[in-house]
Amino acid sequence: MKSDKVRALECVFNPGAVAVIGASDYDGFSQALLSTKIRDRVFLVNPKRREIHGRRCYASILDIEGDIDYVVIAVPALHVPEVLGECIQKGAEAVHIFTAGFSETGLEERRALEEEVREMARGKVRLIGPNCMGVCCPRSGLTFIPDASTEAGPVGVVSQSGTFAEQFLSVGKLRNVKFSKVVSYGNAIDLDCPDFLEYLAHDPDTEVVALYMEGTRNGNRLRAAMTEAAKLKPVLALKGGVTDHGRRAASSHTGSLAGAPEIWSSLFKQAGVIQVEDFDELLDAALALSCARLPSGKGTAIITNSGGFSVLETDLCIKAGLEVPPFGKETISELRKMVPLAGTSIANPLDAWPIYFNTPGTRGTLADAIRVLSHDENIHSIVLHFDEVGYLRRALGAAVEDYLGELIEVMVQGCRYARDEMGRTVMTCVALDAYSDDEEDRRYHFLAKKALETERFPVYPSLGASIKALSNLYRYASLRSGSHKPARRRPPADASLP
Amino acid sequence: MKSDKVRALECVFNPGAVAVIGASDYDGFSQALLSTKIRDRVFLVNPKRREIHGRRCYASILDIEGDIDYVVIAVPALHVPEVLGECIQKGAEAVHIFTAGFSETGLEERRALEEEVREMARGKVRLIGPNCMGVCCPRSGLTFIPDASTEAGPVGVVSQSGTFAEQFLSVGKLRNVKFSKVVSYGNAIDLDCPDFLEYLAHDPDTEVVALYMEGTRNGNRLRAAMTEAAKLKPVLALKGGVTDHGRRAASSHTGSLAGAPEIWSSLFKQAGVIQVEDFDELLDAALALSCARLPSGKGTAIITNSGGFSVLETDLCIKAGLEVPPFGKETISELRKMVPLAGTSIANPLDAWPIYFNTPGTRGTLADAIRVLSHDENIHSIVLHFDEVGYLRRALGAAVEDYLGELIEVMVQGCRYARDEMGRTVMTCVALDAYSDDEEDRRYHFLAKKALETERFPVYPSLGASIKALSNLYRYASLRSGSHKPARRRPPADASLP
Repeated sequence: MKSDKVRALECVFNPGAVAVIGASDYDGFSQALLSTKIRDRVFLVNPKRREIHGRRCYASILDIEGDIDYVVIAVPALHVPEVLGECIQKGAEAVHIFTAGFSETGLEERRALEEEVREMARGKVRLIGPNCMGVCCPRSGLTFIPDASTEAGPVGVVSQSGTFAEQFLSVGKLRNVKFSKVVSYGNAIDLDCPDFLEYLAHDPDTEVVALYMEGTRNGNRLRAAMTEAAKLKPVLALKGGVTDHGRRAASSHTGSLAGAPEIWSSLFKQAGVIQVEDFDELLDAALALSCARLPSGKGTAIITNSGGFSVLETDLCIKAGLEVPPFGKETISELRKMVPLAGTSIANPLDAWPIYFNTPGTRGTLADAIRVLSHDENIHSIVLHFDEVGYLRRALGAAVEDYLGELIEVMVQGCRYARDEMGRTVMTCVALDAYSDDEEDRRYHFLAKKALETERFPVYPSLGASIKALSNLYRYASLRSGSHKPARRRPPADASLP
Repeated sequence: MKSDKVRALECVFNPGAVAVIGASDYDGFSQALLSTKIRDRVFLVNPKRREIHGRRCYASILDIEGDIDYVVIAVPALHVPEVLGECIQKGAEAVHIFTAGFSETGLEERRALEEEVREMARGKVRLIGPNCMGVCCPRSGLTFIPDASTEAGPVGVVSQSGTFAEQFLSVGKLRNVKFSKVVSYGNAIDLDCPDFLEYLAHDPDTEVVALYMEGTRNGNRLRAAMTEAAKLKPVLALKGGVTDHGRRAASSHTGSLAGAPEIWSSLFKQAGVIQVEDFDELLDAALALSCARLPSGKGTAIITNSGGFSVLETDLCIKAGLEVPPFGKETISELRKMVPLAGTSIANPLDAWPIYFNTPGTRGTLADAIRVLSHDENIHSIVLHFDEVGYLRRALGAAVEDYLGELIEVMVQGCRYARDEMGRTVMTCVALDAYSDDEEDRRYHFLAKKALETERFPVYPSLGASIKALSNLYRYASLRSGSHKPARRRPPADASLP
């Protein structure tokens, strides 16, 4: 039998009707909710308006006919108790309080206001927030930014920070990361990180969990929830506030007591959670875990077109706990047959420009090179660096358009072979600089990116990012294969209850 | 009196006439050299062709009328001795051997070929390479990639890797890094890293030196050259091959003996050189050192619009050796007057969205906030995060175009005040993702970037990059202010001679 909390969360993620209290022409929630398939079940509330975005606007939630399951409150903090009272009267299941200006201000009267809100809701309605962006669920259409991807996918995100959750959605969309649920929980006066985590652990739509947190009110509950979730699926965590100044910043952001970094690291380790160091690493690892095959070992082959970068990226692999082993004799002899000596390095990393120039159908294409590497028993993963557009444009002139199409096809063929026939992990980098301003160049790169994404390969804008993501895949593979010792101190069975 | 070597290097960077031996329709050197102001002094050589790119093509360098100072050799390795002989006969001052396939292959016969080339040139002509891209000098027009910036600037680069040097030029162009000289020296059988470094140390056009190296043949000479240069200007260094596998990769890339990482780190430290960890950090630090004011202390203020990121970036500052101190009482009281309580954090980092929405002319603009911070005596540097385009577009609709123009102007005003009136270091981040595909959004970001660059502020695509670059500015400021102890073991006076 489902607990009340699970039922409430199911309603949170898949609400029947939704109301936005404090709707305006410019509030992001109205714009966002009216842009998805949930739009016909969205009701706007603002006593000062009759109509917003061409929709009827109600003076109070109590004026809406029919039930309202889920409410977004976006009115100034001092008005929150009043409208919350009306939500309770209306019988809403869950209320998301977007409004900030509570305990995180550090002011006593605002702390008291937060406490008042908590007490009002207790036993009557579940709360998300205050001071947060709330919930996005592409499957139901519930969302908090207008341009989030509407396509559902395997990544579940639980974030204490709202902009962090927004960034996950917006950058995730660019990187082909697709989400089951994204939650920003803010001050968490009722529903808290462990609640969402427990839900995602058992959510069949969620295959990977990514956490961002600055602190917790209940370390034991959090440990229990993380341990349980990490038994069922990969859980990644980023902890903000690991330095003294960072902790002070966290306190004025979400009012969190952040705790010593060593305690957190050991908590994550005990729970079998993979701790990462920054936003990009978290997003990149989530992408890898949501679509790449787990590597069966550390052995990594790098295919690149730059000697200097191949040296630096090899260093990076080693620092990240991977290996870049020499190729076997047979691999080298096969590669020698297809690649000339000068300006190439028939070694690992493979720095062999001609494989990008040999046309499909001839011997020594990119696909041939990938095939040869994937037969090497020391190689468990292949990291492919696609950064040839500039060279090819210079060398081929107008012919580059057709040629690139063929090269991309050959590249995808090779990657598919390595993954599907040989069971290798394949990571790809389609190198682009953030400030690149050559639209033609960007278009060619996007062709390669799209082709790889369509075949469900993880694509990264830098070789460093793809290597870091591979190392996190490998960390998870090692945890799964049992090199990870589970926490000795098991939480008591009822530790997951509040 | 200038040494022969210095005279040769002056000719290398500012050659009269240049020949490309092995020119073709598609070789990058011909394309590059014919695209700059040096074009009229460029001669193409290829016995199989009569004309390339509409220019006469000579069968041999000996057929060219008049002197040739500088030659690019781009013929297969086995032909190099023959054409080098002709260059010597022609009386060329310096020859750049692009061709690869020498000692870096690890093959004995290729090692012998390299030795033969070295012996041929000894005392007759100076060599750059083989296995490298050679020299780019925007001031003279000498270059090796067609789309390098033609605008000269303060950064000198000496790189063992060719693609690394190319990347410096191409990414540098996107990031507003301008170069005095960029050298890729490869196998360095004659002119080597210390030679170029000595030259750049005394080159009045070079204000910052960036090095990439994988190994050296002569540690004492390198130490002496680095020590000398670092006394005169900031020297940044990135060492490739700091792990076992990385060293193996370096060996097959440039035939370098890479040495233990601790030896290199201590060498850099002794010499007063700032060691960095990756390509982006090197480029970003070079940009900072080429245009930002040196910080007079660690105290850093961050202005952002994201609570979650402000926590993470504070952690990053601390890890990078900076501080994010609390603001003084007066600063907080001034800020409180202009920023409402809810959803903001009047603390350091300053997370105060209304300052991006208050129109110029009203109280509480971005410029006002920057001005207030720049008066705080604990604050030596300001890191400004510009990431508002998405919000502003949603909130303002079509009015965003005009508003953004005003906001950018106000932002630049504030930054100028902090730097020029208050002597603060100002770093800026105009946040863009590499895979961002919204052209309108990119255009708005480029407006902000351009406006800041025009006023010579360093601009970075991520807040993390701007913080890392600030930390390297601070490292250099500390070295200069004498917290750095110079190396005890001074090199002998003639150590700079080969």
